[in-house]
Amino acid sequence: MTKERPLILVTNDDGIYAPGIRALVKAALKFGDVVVVAPDKPQSGMGHAITINSTLRVEVVHAHEGAQSWSCSGTPVDCVKMAVNKLLSRKPDLCLSGINHGANHSINVIYSGTMSAAMEGAIEGVPSIGFSLLDYSIEADFNAAQHYAEQLISFVLKNGMERGVCLNVNIPKGPVEEIKGLRVARQAQGTWIEELDERTDPAGRKYYWLTGRFENFEPEADDTDAYALQHNYVSVVPVQFDLTAYNVMPNIKQLEGI
Amino acid sequence: MTKERPLILVTNDDGIYAPGIRALVKAALKFGDVVVVAPDKPQSGMGHAITINSTLRVEVVHAHEGAQSWSCSGTPVDCVKMAVNKLLSRKPDLCLSGINHGANHSINVIYSGTMSAAMEGAIEGVPSIGFSLLDYSIEADFNAAQHYAEQLISFVLKNGMERGVCLNVNIPKGPVEEIKGLRVARQAQGTWIEELDERTDPAGRKYYWLTGRFENFEPEADDTDAYALQHNYVSVVPVQFDLTAYNVMPNIKQLEGI
Repeated sequence: MTKERPLILVTNDDGIYAPGIRALVKAALKFGDVVVVAPDKPQSGMGHAITINSTLRVEVVHAHEGAQSWSCSGTPVDCVKMAVNKLLSRKPDLCLSGINHGANHSINVIYSGTMSAAMEGAIEGVPSIGFSLLDYSIEADFNAAQHYAEQLISFVLKNGMERGVCLNVNIPKGPVEEIKGLRVARQAQGTWIEELDERTDPAGRKYYWLTGRFENFEPEADDTDAYALQHNYVSVVPVQFDLTAYNVMPNIKQLEGI
Repeated sequence: MTKERPLILVTNDDGIYAPGIRALVKAALKFGDVVVVAPDKPQSGMGHAITINSTLRVEVVHAHEGAQSWSCSGTPVDCVKMAVNKLLSRKPDLCLSGINHGANHSINVIYSGTMSAAMEGAIEGVPSIGFSLLDYSIEADFNAAQHYAEQLISFVLKNGMERGVCLNVNIPKGPVEEIKGLRVARQAQGTWIEELDERTDPAGRKYYWLTGRFENFEPEADDTDAYALQHNYVSVVPVQFDLTAYNVMPNIKQLEGI
């Protein structure tokens, strides 16, 4: 009896035709049968959004050579739900998301459509990895990212993943020779310092662009993803979705007496 | 010198005219000056989505008696960013989100626009609470929810909140006399069993509604939010946003040798 080839689901948040997902599909094809279910348009910053007040559509597209592909009208999380619960013939062995055009370290994990798709894979009980490259350019070089994606796909297919956990992988910009290796890290504490860029439309009405810069609250800590990336390592953060602040529970226990 | 009245920001994900936010504004007005910045349309299931590929607009509206109100074209998280970084004259003392029409216990915390707004408040360093009532009806009775909202607003204004933590409060359906009190709880483990309801449009093309039912993986555990709600208690879960799976880090340390 021949062992079945792994079934690998690929999605992203930049849309099914983005260069980053092409690199990820190429990496995945070396390890198994690949099915792509990805948004029909860019969905950056969608966080863990799902479509509940409107309908979803999927369409077969010829977007990726060697991989069956569907474009989906919904968010990255919708794509994973649609794939696992409707389109795939069996539960996938691996769910990959990305490669995102832009960083998803630190607090960005909660705003990121890329990482939300990976988390949704983990919620569905599928070992999952989200990949992001620290380069927003449409001309970005995905070679190093693809190289490390292959290493991580191989590792997770071989070793599996704890249920309810996925990996958040960020890859520095630049050629593979300049990257120093991988670091297992924790999510850095930090935040976006927002600047709402105010403009005036031709009719004289104000509108805003959300913009800002990331501030690392602990730039000296050497065990964070932000630190690893700054020192040209690929960062790998295991991510889970129990958000309970267990350490705070005793402090508010008195609420039960109200 | 008179002590300044607390400044309370109120938002939600059901839109600025939803009955639930009216009840929350009424509760907040008993404790301070209230500013409402809330979505101009329903934004349920938006998770931690933010608007980065299009622009944001805000408009002064007369939506809530006694409270200055802006409607915003963005998501619940956008509303908090807009309020704190642009519209408010000073950092608010409290950020309230809700009262959501429908439950946000267990895994729902990551899909919920209501809770993402509260988390965004906490990210901005503002003590924050998200409220949800276990009743989806537009005719829902918010009296009990308003009663408990007042208790929690009073508690948090008096005691403050650890930085980076917000409260996820769910209130059972029904009159206040039938509710047994408050329980500090952890997020129950569970998931949505998805059913993609397939239909055919008048042109003969398929479309889908995302639907499903929640499955609690640990119905016997008596320290979860789902358990508290099932036994007619208000559940209060402290929520934080470091998603690192610290226990898994040693298991994947070998990745550094790849």
